[in-house]
Amino acid sequence: MTRKIRMGMVGGGEGAFIGAVHRIAAAMDGQIELVCGAFSSNAEKSKRSGEALYLPAERCYGSYQDMMDSEAALPESERMDFVAIVTPNHLHYPVAEAALNAGFHVMSDKPATFNLDEALRLKTLVEKTGLLYGLTHTYTGYPLVKEARQRIARGDLGEIRKVVVEYPQGWLADHSNDDSKQASWRVDPSKSGISNCMGDIGVHAANLAEYVSGLKIHKICADLNATVAGRTLDDDGSVLLRFNNGARGVLMATQIAVGEENAIRIRVYGEKGGFDWRQEEPNTLVYRTLTEPAQLIRTGVAEMSPLTQANMRTPAGHPEGYLEAFANLYRNFASQVRARLEGSTPDEAALDLPGIADAVRGMSFIENVVAASAAEEKWRELPDY
Amino acid sequence: MTRKIRMGMVGGGEGAFIGAVHRIAAAMDGQIELVCGAFSSNAEKSKRSGEALYLPAERCYGSYQDMMDSEAALPESERMDFVAIVTPNHLHYPVAEAALNAGFHVMSDKPATFNLDEALRLKTLVEKTGLLYGLTHTYTGYPLVKEARQRIARGDLGEIRKVVVEYPQGWLADHSNDDSKQASWRVDPSKSGISNCMGDIGVHAANLAEYVSGLKIHKICADLNATVAGRTLDDDGSVLLRFNNGARGVLMATQIAVGEENAIRIRVYGEKGGFDWRQEEPNTLVYRTLTEPAQLIRTGVAEMSPLTQANMRTPAGHPEGYLEAFANLYRNFASQVRARLEGSTPDEAALDLPGIADAVRGMSFIENVVAASAAEEKWRELPDY
Amino acid sequence: MTRKIRMGMVGGGEGAFIGAVHRIAAAMDGQIELVCGAFSSNAEKSKRSGEALYLPAERCYGSYQDMMDSEAALPESERMDFVAIVTPNHLHYPVAEAALNAGFHVMSDKPATFNLDEALRLKTLVEKTGLLYGLTHTYTGYPLVKEARQRIARGDLGEIRKVVVEYPQGWLADHSNDDSKQASWRVDPSKSGISNCMGDIGVHAANLAEYVSGLKIHKICADLNATVAGRTLDDDGSVLLRFNNGARGVLMATQIAVGEENAIRIRVYGEKGGFDWRQEEPNTLVYRTLTEPAQLIRTGVAEMSPLTQANMRTPAGHPEGYLEAFANLYRNFASQVRARLEGSTPDEAALDLPGIADAVRGMSFIENVVAASAAEEKWRELPDY
Amino acid sequence: MTRKIRMGMVGGGEGAFIGAVHRIAAAMDGQIELVCGAFSSNAEKSKRSGEALYLPAERCYGSYQDMMDSEAALPESERMDFVAIVTPNHLHYPVAEAALNAGFHVMSDKPATFNLDEALRLKTLVEKTGLLYGLTHTYTGYPLVKEARQRIARGDLGEIRKVVVEYPQGWLADHSNDDSKQASWRVDPSKSGISNCMGDIGVHAANLAEYVSGLKIHKICADLNATVAGRTLDDDGSVLLRFNNGARGVLMATQIAVGEENAIRIRVYGEKGGFDWRQEEPNTLVYRTLTEPAQLIRTGVAEMSPLTQANMRTPAGHPEGYLEAFANLYRNFASQVRARLEGSTPDEAALDLPGIADAVRGMSFIENVVAASAAEEKWRELPDY
Repeated sequence: MTRKIRMGMVGGGEGAFIGAVHRIAAAMDGQIELVCGAFSSNAEKSKRSGEALYLPAERCYGSYQDMMDSEAALPESERMDFVAIVTPNHLHYPVAEAALNAGFHVMSDKPATFNLDEALRLKTLVEKTGLLYGLTHTYTGYPLVKEARQRIARGDLGEIRKVVVEYPQGWLADHSNDDSKQASWRVDPSKSGISNCMGDIGVHAANLAEYVSGLKIHKICADLNATVAGRTLDDDGSVLLRFNNGARGVLMATQIAVGEENAIRIRVYGEKGGFDWRQEEPNTLVYRTLTEPAQLIRTGVAEMSPLTQANMRTPAGHPEGYLEAFANLYRNFASQVRARLEGSTPDEAALDLPGIADAVRGMSFIENVVAASAAEEKWRELPDY
Repeated sequence: MTRKIRMGMVGGGEGAFIGAVHRIAAAMDGQIELVCGAFSSNAEKSKRSGEALYLPAERCYGSYQDMMDSEAALPESERMDFVAIVTPNHLHYPVAEAALNAGFHVMSDKPATFNLDEALRLKTLVEKTGLLYGLTHTYTGYPLVKEARQRIARGDLGEIRKVVVEYPQGWLADHSNDDSKQASWRVDPSKSGISNCMGDIGVHAANLAEYVSGLKIHKICADLNATVAGRTLDDDGSVLLRFNNGARGVLMATQIAVGEENAIRIRVYGEKGGFDWRQEEPNTLVYRTLTEPAQLIRTGVAEMSPLTQANMRTPAGHPEGYLEAFANLYRNFASQVRARLEGSTPDEAALDLPGIADAVRGMSFIENVVAASAAEEKWRELPDY
Repeated sequence: MTRKIRMGMVGGGEGAFIGAVHRIAAAMDGQIELVCGAFSSNAEKSKRSGEALYLPAERCYGSYQDMMDSEAALPESERMDFVAIVTPNHLHYPVAEAALNAGFHVMSDKPATFNLDEALRLKTLVEKTGLLYGLTHTYTGYPLVKEARQRIARGDLGEIRKVVVEYPQGWLADHSNDDSKQASWRVDPSKSGISNCMGDIGVHAANLAEYVSGLKIHKICADLNATVAGRTLDDDGSVLLRFNNGARGVLMATQIAVGEENAIRIRVYGEKGGFDWRQEEPNTLVYRTLTEPAQLIRTGVAEMSPLTQANMRTPAGHPEGYLEAFANLYRNFASQVRARLEGSTPDEAALDLPGIADAVRGMSFIENVVAASAAEEKWRELPDY
Repeated sequence: MTRKIRMGMVGGGEGAFIGAVHRIAAAMDGQIELVCGAFSSNAEKSKRSGEALYLPAERCYGSYQDMMDSEAALPESERMDFVAIVTPNHLHYPVAEAALNAGFHVMSDKPATFNLDEALRLKTLVEKTGLLYGLTHTYTGYPLVKEARQRIARGDLGEIRKVVVEYPQGWLADHSNDDSKQASWRVDPSKSGISNCMGDIGVHAANLAEYVSGLKIHKICADLNATVAGRTLDDDGSVLLRFNNGARGVLMATQIAVGEENAIRIRVYGEKGGFDWRQEEPNTLVYRTLTEPAQLIRTGVAEMSPLTQANMRTPAGHPEGYLEAFANLYRNFASQVRARLEGSTPDEAALDLPGIADAVRGMSFIENVVAASAAEEKWRELPDY
């Protein structure tokens, strides 16, 4: 097939951070072209946003419903192949539902939906339509995260015993950012859902822990807190974890760790070794064993698994970052779409992408961690989605 | 007073690690001289150990009881001033009791005693005799740990909200070290007490959290584990913390984090700033604020509080380490002893030393964390010792 | 102007590393579209390469001459705006010459030409045609490199006294990579020019030193070496520097530092402060002063100059890397092209891009450092281009 | 032999930094006792200094000549075994000469003497008297420096090709420290000699390069500078190196690198691998190879050579620092003295200590680097001492 995959975007108008990130990620590898968007529910603003992206005015829509209808009416050779959803949380489900019902694949920002019920309904819809669904748990897109997962899966660490995942941020340590475009909806229950901190970043941490370890979180014990005066939703939390194989763990996610930026880090220890990865210096994976010196696993130096190699772009010592990790999600999603269009089978790398199962598990985590924090008994079991 | 303070040692014979550390720490500043010891319960071995330390044979005792009796019988101008206890845990209390009853001050390795009951009895005895008691929670001896405490106490971080303390080790990740002199008694309940991991290193972490933050741990929720097959005592644990001011926290201590050495680290976040300190690179304290770039606080560069300065030995860029931290405890204890001998008031730096109150709180932490782990309710309150 | 800038590429066919990097960099910000290419001098291979990039077959040319002719013949609404040159060194000049003569702007990989004479001729041609010329000294594209330059320019460090720039790599430490597509032409004087190490990476280091410090290298004293048996060109070198303001410096570039990846680093010290930046962890700039603790300047945390902000894409803690730095060069070049097309004045950020002056200085550095190494007198003066 | 080695000290009175460091280093391992001193040329101050160290008044001398005479007159069972010299540079030789002539071994601070001529005379005297002479090139005392040397000596890196040693400090970047006890004599030619920066720290760097690599510096090309207005001696310098096996190198030493503390670092690259060691984080040695991930060699984790093990005191993860490195010099020197007293052969570890040969090479380096900087020819050959 000799064309790029065509993307429409919902959300991501002027001033939005995450929309621009999605566009960069989609553009980077030359596999996807942005062809239309409903960048804002304000039609004028949507058009202005689209024109700044060199889109024709007629494909800058004033509502996502309009976009679905109009695009569906275009000839197959023109219309978008999939919809990228980059709105606040409460719109994720309705937009995804509209897209799927109109026959478009969906690439959604996380958390997948506003609540677990929506996520379960979304799963039913995805299964019913048979369309593709991708979820941007970005941190799974980093090459060395994938390498850690591959090595654990092949047994390098032996049985996993302990997982420590943390996600400290400091940007909500006081009210100074509350009115920013990024914060205002996150701390608002009507747009964010029942959790701010766990819904925004705790869910990333939980997803990363499961992705890297290959385990499932089975039981949790949580202590969430709305630290800053006036907040109704959590801005900090710590969670004890038990995994389905008996491994123990800790998850810490906080937005009030003053001065911390976006320091998600995961450590996994097994019988024979351990991995330590930090997002802020993502090009090094520390590998420890029982008897040998610690090794600095780096792409381009150590031997990488084929799947990792498929998610790298630069040679040794040329650092890749957040946008490349994000772009890996888009490229892998585009490969899935392309395979669908070509009637072929996507390769292993294309399939290595968070999807609807992660969407449901993520929303389940959020609901259960809030409930666990409120509970008096120590442990709360997660349903086996 | 123109003489050094005289130390006797119980334990620390040939092959013992921690005894040698105590001797180096005591010798370093030229304030203390080792004058006698009961280095082993085997008289021959004790004598051999003492001779290697250039002690006269008559002051190398075959039992601690003999040492207390014999030293007490020496003229005041010769006899030891204090006893350093470096035995396995189960002997800490009996030796301390004998020393105090014989009129000698005590400097003890941690944990203070075998169980909480002993610690409470020891407290009574210390108060009754009026003698000095020091406890080697070494990590409180680092200059930058002291600096963090001082700055928090003076309000640099504002109200404290979150404390994250972790202590990962890997040396007990399998059975390969079980027969070492260091491990064999730690994993043996008859010598170690009811906890291995929490008793050995968790208690350091708890002590450090309270020392740096100036807060008290008020409630805990714990999940301990005897991970390695065949162990009866915990070798891993994670604990949720609530402090007396409402701050939240996490404590993680483990001996099965493969390849980790002695990576105790503490992060404290307040309303206005945060500190991050790692023992393995102890000469840097990261200081974060709401709006400014992170600062690397280092002794010899940043302005240090007078108390910190009293615990430094080298100029900027000449790293101090574990032995210097340990030596600070000994020097400060020696200053207390000297003040007692001179009838003067010890200075602030001399008093900045873990003592009998820490002993009781530490043993209480150990007992309660084990109970909390076994409990079904989430929170367990610590008594207000 | 409501269209993207159109790029044609020379070089960068199947298997080439740097061509892919240029394409990613050009695509990332949605400002540039690849419309044609002469990806290989083998017409078949060129077509195959272009088709994999979703180009129409008729715009995949078998030679750069054909590309210039054919594109120039297209209507203005279709033809490319500029040519990206990603061939081996010896073709840089002929391709640039052909492009300029055909009326196309040029974005060239470095070093600019095969020798200084070509660079001087190129300068004449650029001036004569009045067309735009950009040179991909990538490391100047990093946000924190720009921030260091801005702060030095505004006097934060006072008068500059010492510049230490180093560029250690290890990939040519033995012959194992000699046959790779990347190495084979670099070690071949007929394709690389009179220098391998200095021509490939030393010139980056020299450019970075001048860019950050705002100074000019005035005198050099060099010791180059062809370390690995069988090499005719240098693979290692160290150079003493004197700058036009009297500042001293050292430049070290080597390809035989076993295990080093791409560790270009620059330290600049002035009367009042110093900066330290490392490419492999490019999101931190260490700032030292006479009396305060070192600061970790990071984008998204510290206050950045407007020019730096114009070269950032992500919020705090979301690492940007090599491809983003490269993309900054392309975006800034595209802004220049756009301004030219619109008849407007490019903004300051657009103009912050290595150009023909850097091309000449770079080629002069290479020729003079080789001569200096061969000389018996200590110092060699660089011409004042 | 069942006694400690007895040390007398010249210099190191109240307020002196390096004297206190020597005393701590000598005391740490319990092998040496301080028995007397001429701490100041002011008799009253010397006595006051000695009493603060718990020395009897009669062994606190008012001059080093008096100390030599008086100690020599004491019975063998009391008198000191060796003299530690911790004065400013210009007194190193006269004190050493007096000590050797009086029959005492000498442990001297560096640089060994005021100039090369003195060093050569000292060598003659050491050889004539047959007494022991140790020189405190402290950085050779670090365990991982020793490990690097051992591994290079046994061929782990193959033939050495490149050595990069740097020693940036910032404390003399302006005049604010000029009047300190540490700086005032260093910048004064009458006390410091013909070089400040190279004499104080450059000589450490040169010594470290030779110690670790096992090579000799054969030719140098230097550029020294008296950067700060009003200085007559160098405060900054960069030197190109050629070693006796043909390896190339760079040495950079500076006191005007604002904000740098004591950042001596050495990198050595051979055919098969490379080492990287930094004094400010001395417990990690980075080991790179042609094909494997970089390893973090740490004492207590990796397998250490027996000689390294003999210079370690703590288990894994308990950082040792500058004072322990310094103490290794003293312990090894004490072992040499003890062997001499016992008529035995010192072991390999005891002999691993800078001595009179290093003294001569160091002074030769200083004189030649100053001459090389003033020369117009590029290379200056070092005599083969």
